Amino acid sequence: MSDSTHLVLSLSCPDKPGIVHAVTGALARRGGNITESKQFGDSDTGLFFMRVQVETTVPRLELEKDLEALAGDYAMEWSLDEVGRPMRTLIMVSKEGHCLTDLLFRARSQGLPIDVAGVVGNHEDLRAVAEFYGAPFHCIPVTRETKEAAEAELMALVESLGVELVVLARYMQILSPALCERLHGGVINIHHSFLPSFKGARPYAQAHERGVKLIGATAHYVTADLDEGPIIEQDVTRVAHEDSVAALRAKGQDVERRVLAQAVRWHTEHRVLMNGHRTVVFA
Amino acid sequence: MSDSTHLVLSLSCPDKPGIVHAVTGALARRGGNITESKQFGDSDTGLFFMRVQVETTVPRLELEKDLEALAGDYAMEWSLDEVGRPMRTLIMVSKEGHCLTDLLFRARSQGLPIDVAGVVGNHEDLRAVAEFYGAPFHCIPVTRETKEAAEAELMALVESLGVELVVLARYMQILSPALCERLHGGVINIHHSFLPSFKGARPYAQAHERGVKLIGATAHYVTADLDEGPIIEQDVTRVAHEDSVAALRAKGQDVERRVLAQAVRWHTEHRVLMNGHRTVVFA
Amino acid sequence: MSDSTHLVLSLSCPDKPGIVHAVTGALARRGGNITESKQFGDSDTGLFFMRVQVETTVPRLELEKDLEALAGDYAMEWSLDEVGRPMRTLIMVSKEGHCLTDLLFRARSQGLPIDVAGVVGNHEDLRAVAEFYGAPFHCIPVTRETKEAAEAELMALVESLGVELVVLARYMQILSPALCERLHGGVINIHHSFLPSFKGARPYAQAHERGVKLIGATAHYVTADLDEGPIIEQDVTRVAHEDSVAALRAKGQDVERRVLAQAVRWHTEHRVLMNGHRTVVFA
Amino acid sequence: MSDSTHLVLSLSCPDKPGIVHAVTGALARRGGNITESKQFGDSDTGLFFMRVQVETTVPRLELEKDLEALAGDYAMEWSLDEVGRPMRTLIMVSKEGHCLTDLLFRARSQGLPIDVAGVVGNHEDLRAVAEFYGAPFHCIPVTRETKEAAEAELMALVESLGVELVVLARYMQILSPALCERLHGGVINIHHSFLPSFKGARPYAQAHERGVKLIGATAHYVTADLDEGPIIEQDVTRVAHEDSVAALRAKGQDVERRVLAQAVRWHTEHRVLMNGHRTVVFA
Repeated sequence: MSDSTHLVLSLSCPDKPGIVHAVTGALARRGGNITESKQFGDSDTGLFFMRVQVETTVPRLELEKDLEALAGDYAMEWSLDEVGRPMRTLIMVSKEGHCLTDLLFRARSQGLPIDVAGVVGNHEDLRAVAEFYGAPFHCIPVTRETKEAAEAELMALVESLGVELVVLARYMQILSPALCERLHGGVINIHHSFLPSFKGARPYAQAHERGVKLIGATAHYVTADLDEGPIIEQDVTRVAHEDSVAALRAKGQDVERRVLAQAVRWHTEHRVLMNGHRTVVFA
Repeated sequence: MSDSTHLVLSLSCPDKPGIVHAVTGALARRGGNITESKQFGDSDTGLFFMRVQVETTVPRLELEKDLEALAGDYAMEWSLDEVGRPMRTLIMVSKEGHCLTDLLFRARSQGLPIDVAGVVGNHEDLRAVAEFYGAPFHCIPVTRETKEAAEAELMALVESLGVELVVLARYMQILSPALCERLHGGVINIHHSFLPSFKGARPYAQAHERGVKLIGATAHYVTADLDEGPIIEQDVTRVAHEDSVAALRAKGQDVERRVLAQAVRWHTEHRVLMNGHRTVVFA
Repeated sequence: MSDSTHLVLSLSCPDKPGIVHAVTGALARRGGNITESKQFGDSDTGLFFMRVQVETTVPRLELEKDLEALAGDYAMEWSLDEVGRPMRTLIMVSKEGHCLTDLLFRARSQGLPIDVAGVVGNHEDLRAVAEFYGAPFHCIPVTRETKEAAEAELMALVESLGVELVVLARYMQILSPALCERLHGGVINIHHSFLPSFKGARPYAQAHERGVKLIGATAHYVTADLDEGPIIEQDVTRVAHEDSVAALRAKGQDVERRVLAQAVRWHTEHRVLMNGHRTVVFA
Repeated sequence: MSDSTHLVLSLSCPDKPGIVHAVTGALARRGGNITESKQFGDSDTGLFFMRVQVETTVPRLELEKDLEALAGDYAMEWSLDEVGRPMRTLIMVSKEGHCLTDLLFRARSQGLPIDVAGVVGNHEDLRAVAEFYGAPFHCIPVTRETKEAAEAELMALVESLGVELVVLARYMQILSPALCERLHGGVINIHHSFLPSFKGARPYAQAHERGVKLIGATAHYVTADLDEGPIIEQDVTRVAHEDSVAALRAKGQDVERRVLAQAVRWHTEHRVLMNGHRTVVFA
C-alpha cells in the first residue's frame, strides 16, 4: 500500500462485551488492515486493554475523530500514534554513563524510536558522550537549596522542548512529589535491583551482604512513592561468591542498560498500559 | 456469569481487511465477552492468525454454526474448543522416563490439560510409572520386521481411544512417512538438541565433541522430514568444560521435559498455529 | 586406576599462605591425583575455602589421619567423602508433591546422590508417591499442641535412620529454633520467592499484587531466623500480566523443584561451604 | 600487603600426580598467598589445566625463573601475568558499531582490561566512535586484489603496536589461512549465530527461515577452518513469530556484544585455556 500509514492504537476501559468489535468496526469502515493486535481483560480490576496496529489510507486525524466518539461510549483512555514515530525524549543522568551511552547508540543505530531532545545531568561528566551523539547537554546541578529552582528549570525544558518522555538513566536525585505528579506516566526510572528487593540506596552492597545468587534491575514508572511505581520490565544475571560489590556493580550495569532500553522501547511503541499500580505489557 | 462457557477460537486465513471485525462481530452478536486475544498478520506469507478466548452463554455448537458461514467467506482453517478441556493424548516412550513422569505429574497436579488415553512403549521399562498415574500402558515392540504391524497397532489405538494428540516423549523410533502424513499436525516430538544443531543420533555426544557452552532441546511437530518439522518451543541450559557426555545428558533432560511440557500446554490451549513450516505461538 | 577410590575433600579455615601447598602435599605423598579443584580466599571475612577431588589408592581412613594433623595446624573445618556416595536424606513435605516427585525421580534415574531414608509428611497426601519410589513414609501431623512431640518424633527418626541431610520440600511448618540449632547446616529449605523479596506467607500472591515481571525461588539453609538463612541457589522465570496467582504458582513450581534439586546436588557433592551467613558454592 | 603484586598463572600440561603440589610449592616458597584458583583434569584428552591468582612480594620475573624449571619437568604451556594488566588489543570492524562501541565503553568505564592499541576498519564508518574513545583508527580497505597487501599491512600494525590480542568485532572479511596460523590463539571472533547452527553468511535470515524460537551468538578463537574454532562463550535470546529478520538482527546485536565482551574479558584475565579444539574456561 503505497499511500498507507501504519498506526498504533492503544486503549483501556471498563470491560464489557463488544469492545473489540466496536473498535475494529471503526477501523474496518476506514479500510484499515490489522497487522498485529493483542487484548486482555483483567477480571481482578474489571479493566479491558487493547493494542492494535493497523494499516490504513485514511489520515490519522480523521481516524481520531471516529475514535473520539467511540471513546466516549466506552469511557476509554486511548492514544493513536504512527508506528515507529520517534518520541521526544529527555534523558537525565548523573555520573555513570552506561545507560545513556546505550540509549544514544540504540537511537542512532538500532531503531530505538526516541528523538533525544536533550540530556540533563546534575554533573558535567557525561556532556561529551551526549554531544558526540548530537544531543544537547544541560547541566542542572542540584543541592538541597537549589532543588526547587532546578526542578523549575527542568520543567521549563520539558515544555520548551516538547518532551513526551523523561528517562532517568541512573539519575541519582529523587524527584519531588509535585514533579512526579505533574509528569505522571511519563517518567521511566531504572533501579539497580530486582524490586522489591533492595530498595533505596546502595542495592549492590545490600545484595552482596545478603549473599544472593542473582542480581537484577527494574524499570518502572516514577511515582511519588519511591521505588514503588508500576514495574515495566525486570531482568537478572547470575553472580557468584567471588564477586565483590564492585563486580556486582559491573555485572549489574549490563542488566540495567538492557532492562531500561527494553522498557523505553515498549513505552515508545505504546505497548505498556497502566493497570492500577501494575502494568499490562503487550510485548 | 453463572451459565457461561469459556471458549477458545483459533484460526488462520489469507490476510485481508475486516477479519477481526467480522469474527468479533459474530461473537458480539451472541453476547460474547472477549477475555484474551491475539492476532498477527505475516507479510511474508500473506496469512492472518487469530486466537480469541470468549465468555458466552451460547452453546458451543450454535457458535460453531455462525463461524462456519464466516469461515467459508474468509477461507479459514479454524477450531473452537472449551478453555481448559483436556485433550485426549497418547504418550509414546522408550526407556527414559523423565518426560513421561513430568507430563503425568503435570496432568495430575498442575493443570496440564491432557487426558492421557494411554502410554505406548516399545519397551516395558516405563509400565510402572504409567500405571502409577493411572494411564494404561501398551507395549508395542518395534523391529525392522515388525515396524509395519506395530504402526498399524498404534493407529488402531489412536482411533479406538479417540486420540487427538500424540506426544513422542523420548520415543526412540522413527515414524514412517505414511504415519507422519496421516497424523499431520497432531504429533509433537522432543529432540534433545537445539535444532538445527546436532540433528540425528547422539546429540549430546555431538555437543560435547564440538565444545558448545549451552545445550538445548526442541519441541516440534513431526513431519516425514526428520528433525525438520515446525518448531514449537526451544530452550537451553549452560554447560561447562567439566561436563562429560553423561553430565550433558542429565542437564539436558531438565530442558527436554520443560520444553516438551510447554509445547504440549500451548498446543492443547490452541496457542500454536501452522505458518508454512514455521509456527505462530500466541503464548 | 583399578583399585583407586575417588575422594572429595572440602575445607575452610582462616586464610594464610601455604594452605593449598600443604593440602596438596598431603595428597601427593599418598600418590593422589587431583581431578578437579577450586579455591577461594575471601578478603572480607579472612577465610579460605577449598574443594578438591582426588583419585587415590590409599583408603579414605588413612588419608583422614593425615588430614587431621594438618587440620589442627590450620584450624580447618573439613570433610572427606567418597565422590558420588549417596547421602542419607530425609525429605519433609506437606501436600504439594512437585519437589518430592522431582527429588525421588532424580535419585532413581538421574544420579542425584541421595539415599532417601524416609519421607515425613504432616499430611497423608504424598504417601503414595513416596512408596512408589520405595521410600518409607511417616505421617507426623503437627498442631500447636503437638508440635513439641512431633519434633521429638522427627529427631528420633533422624537419629535412628542415620540421616545426614533433611530437605524441606515445600514443608509448610516452621521448625522450632531449638531444632534449627540442633540440625544446623543440615537442613535445606525451598522458599517460593526470590529472597529477600516476598518473605513469609503467600509469596505468589504478594508477587502478583506488586506486579513483578519475574518470579523466583530460593534454596537456603534453615536457621532460626525465618527466610534469612544462607542462600545456596536461586533462579527465576518470566511471568506476564495475564498470569493469575494460580498461574504464578504453577510456573513457580518449575523453578522451585529445579532450584531445590540443584541445591541438594551441590550440598551432597560437598560444593557448598558456609561463609558467615553467606555461602561459597564451588559449582 | 603494601608492596605485593597480584599475579595470575595459567597452565596446561599432560596430567600426572603432583602438579598442584609442585606449582603451589613454588609459590609457597616465595611467600605467595593464593586468592583464587581452579584446576581441572580432562580424562578424555589426558590434559591438566590450572589457573591460580597469587599475592606475592617477589617480582614477577623471579617467579618466572622458578616456574621455568618446573615447566620443563611437566611439559607445561604456561603464562604469568599481573592481575588486571590491560592487554594490548587491536579491534577490527566493518560497518556495524555495536560491538566496537561496547568494547570501548567497557574499557573506559567498566574495567575491561584491554588497552586498545588501535581500531582497523575496512570501511571509514566507525572512525568517529573510535576516535571519540581515543583509539587510533586505521582504514584498510580489502578487495580480492588487495587482500594480500591488506593483511601485510595488518600484520605490520600488529607488530609495530605490540598487539597481544586481535578482536574481530563484526569484521566482515575472512582472514587468510596463513594469517590465522600466524596469530593462532590470539584472534577472537564473534559469530552472529548459536554455532554450529547457521554457519556462514546471513545467519539471522537462516534463523528466520527455520523458525527457531531462540537466536544466539558465539565467540570463538579464529582458525583456518571458518566458524569451527574453539568456542569461548555463547548465549541466546528469545524471539517470536512477529520478529522480522531485521528484528532478529536488532535483538541479536545485544547478545553479540555481551558474548564478545565476556569472551574478551575471560581471555584477558587468562581464564581460557585450549583443550584441543575445545576450551577450558575458568570463569
